[in-house]
This record gives sequence, structure tokens and C-alpha cells, in this order.
Amino acid sequence: MGVEERRQQLIGVALELFSRRSPDEVSIDEIASAAGISRPLVYHYFPGKLSLYEAALKRASDDLAARFVEPHEGPLGARLLRVMRRFFDFVDEHGPGFSALMRGGPAVGSSTTNALIDSVRQAAYVQILSHLGVTDPPARLELVVRSWISLAESTALIWLDGRRIPRAELEVQLVHDFAALTAVSAAQDAEMAALLRRIAGEEPADGPFASLAGRLLALAT
Amino acid sequence: MGVEERRQQLIGVALELFSRRSPDEVSIDEIASAAGISRPLVYHYFPGKLSLYEAALKRASDDLAARFVEPHEGPLGARLLRVMRRFFDFVDEHGPGFSALMRGGPAVGSSTTNALIDSVRQAAYVQILSHLGVTDPPARLELVVRSWISLAESTALIWLDGRRIPRAELEVQLVHDFAALTAVSAAQDAEMAALLRRIAGEEPADGPFASLAGRLLALAT
Repeated sequence: MGVEERRQQLIGVALELFSRRSPDEVSIDEIASAAGISRPLVYHYFPGKLSLYEAALKRASDDLAARFVEPHEGPLGARLLRVMRRFFDFVDEHGPGFSALMRGGPAVGSSTTNALIDSVRQAAYVQILSHLGVTDPPARLELVVRSWISLAESTALIWLDGRRIPRAELEVQLVHDFAALTAVSAAQDAEMAALLRRIAGEEPADGPFASLAGRLLALAT
Repeated sequence: MGVEERRQQLIGVALELFSRRSPDEVSIDEIASAAGISRPLVYHYFPGKLSLYEAALKRASDDLAARFVEPHEGPLGARLLRVMRRFFDFVDEHGPGFSALMRGGPAVGSSTTNALIDSVRQAAYVQILSHLGVTDPPARLELVVRSWISLAESTALIWLDGRRIPRAELEVQLVHDFAALTAVSAAQDAEMAALLRRIAGEEPADGPFASLAGRLLALAT
């Protein structure tokens, strides 16, 4: 194997191990063994566990950011639901590693780790704005989108802790939460109200946004 | 001054400095100077900056947790709004330190720091359940309450970054967000629907929950 090929293979093996258990518990010996090479050879490619962890996290971050990309076709609620499914696929695949990272894992506080987490949040933010057709978001819209992204993170973390609620239900719930947070902001602000009306006007009667409105009306009566 | 008195004074001085600027930027020299003592004397009471930071964070955590305590009197929406006001008072007083801590500051990833953050979240969670009159929360209610707490954190962090939205508006918005997230969950689940009906039934027509419902109905028509 060439140097770059070997590095990529090691990153893949390490990501697999860092995903399935808390990264604290994964040793370089174990990574070497899983890759079928010697411990010194691992150090030949990566100076230490932190640099290998950061390389694995970079690959996972790129993977997650790519899952937010969704064609600009069809109703917005259905697009967001497809993205939520891919997000939960990712969380499912990387559960223990995702929890450890987001709850303050071994490399948290390192500027590289924080920058990678922020880059994924920013990628999600940019994608959502582009689907909303907004280039210069007012402060209230930025708040709704960014705080909803953090809500998606915390919902996934709470789900991972015992998986007591079916993930398919939470994928729909997060789409509904987005509509609900937008509606709360729209209830206070004319610009947000205009945005909400535009989005709602483009939604089909059988989409997730309309189904929420119908269920809430049924609750209220 | 006695030893404990001097320690408490130093913690107070340090908390003030760690609150107003990113803790990274605060030196032991500066803390010594603000306390009117020598640098070696600071080290006599605290072995290093991290231990002084953790002691200051412990005081801030106790202070914040105490602000969640609210008499079990009057409508729930009004109680939650008073708690949100005290939460934003805290965030306002400790802005730069709060941001640095929650965004991954110098001591983040230390087990003491993470445990303190978690203890404050747990205190908020326990208070909210007690106000809801629930002792054995179903998984969906736990999710709503815990994810709303993270929404309050992220809303405060986004507010601190430029303060582009009046904080009084965000205090009301978070109360509305709580109702909205509960309603989204209630739209899918009968047990949550029963809880929502009970809460809504006890709210006065001029409370924050009722005002949200009225505004949303006005938006929808």
C-alpha cells in the first residue's frame, strides 16, 4: 500500500472503532490490530491517538455534512424529513462516538475538534437557508435555524441514551419542531410571519407540515 | 482574613474576571492584582488557574441552579417566564465566560467542568418536572424537557453573539417554545396530549401560553 492509501485505511479502521465505543476506551494497540499492522507502524502515519482521532472525526464530519445536501425539488417538509432520516442514520452508525464527542469527549476542547463540530453546524445552517431561499437572513431567522440545529443534536443524544422512542417518530418530530419554532417566532414578528406563510403556502395537504397543523387543530378542539 | 474567608473572596474576584472576558485571557497575576494580594499568595490557596476556575464555576453553577427555584403558585406559563428572566439575568452578568464555557472553553472536557454543567441541567430538569406535577416522566416528556433546556442554552448563546434581538422577547419566546415543543409531542402521543390539556386548562386567558395560541390562530386565518 502507498502512504496515502495506508493513511486512509487507518482512518477508516479508527473511525469504525471510535464510533462503536467511547474514543477514550480505544487504544492504539487495538487500532493497529484491527488494521493488521504493528503499533510502531501506526505511529509512522500518525504521531498519536489525538491526531488519528481528529483525522477520523474529519472524515465523519465530511460524511455528515454531505448528508445535509438535498435536491431543491418538491415540498420543503419532505426534503427536511429526508435529511433527518440521513442524520439519524449517521447518529445510529456512530452512536457511542457521537455521544462521547458531543457530551465532552477526550479531544473536546481541542481547537481542531471544536472547529470540525462548528463546520458541520455551519454546513447544516447554509443548506437550510438555501432551501428556504433566503440569502440574507434576519436575526430571528438565524436564531430559529441555529437553535433548531442544536435541538436536533440534543434530540439525537437523548435518543441514543436508551433508544426509548422509535427514531422514525423523532425524525418526523424534528421536522414538526422546525415548523413549530418558526411559528412561535412568526407569532411575534411580521417578517417571520411572511416567511412562514410563504413556506406553508407551498406545502401539500399530505406533507409533514400540514399533518402537524391538522393534529394541533384537532388537539385544540 | 481567615483561610476560608480569603478563599471565598478570591473565588468572587476570579468569577467576576472569568465572567467578563474569556477565561483563557484571564491570568493569575490579574486575579492577584484585583484581589489586592501577591501572586504566590493566590497559589497558597489554589494550586493553579484550573482549580480556581473550577471553584468559580461551582459558585456560578450553584447561583444559576438557585435561580430555577420558583414558588409553586399561580399559572405555569408565568412561573416559567419568571425563571427565564432570571436565566437571562445570569447570562447577561456572565456573558463572555458563559459563551467560552459552553462553546468549549479552556477547562471544557475536564470531568469537573462537565459534571458542573450537567448538574445545572439536571437541576433545571428536576424543577420543571416538579412544576408539571410529574414524578415518573414518560420518555417523550423527558425528551421535551431536556431538549428544551438545550434550546434555552443555545438561544442564550446566540443572543450573546451580538445581542441583535431584545432579551425580553427571547424570554417570552422560550416560554412559547416550551409550549410548542410540548404540543408537537402531544400531536403524536396520547399521554403527552393529556398532559398538554391539563396544563392548558389551568392557564389564564392573559398568560403567555394563551397569547401564543391566539397569535398562532390569527396567523393561520
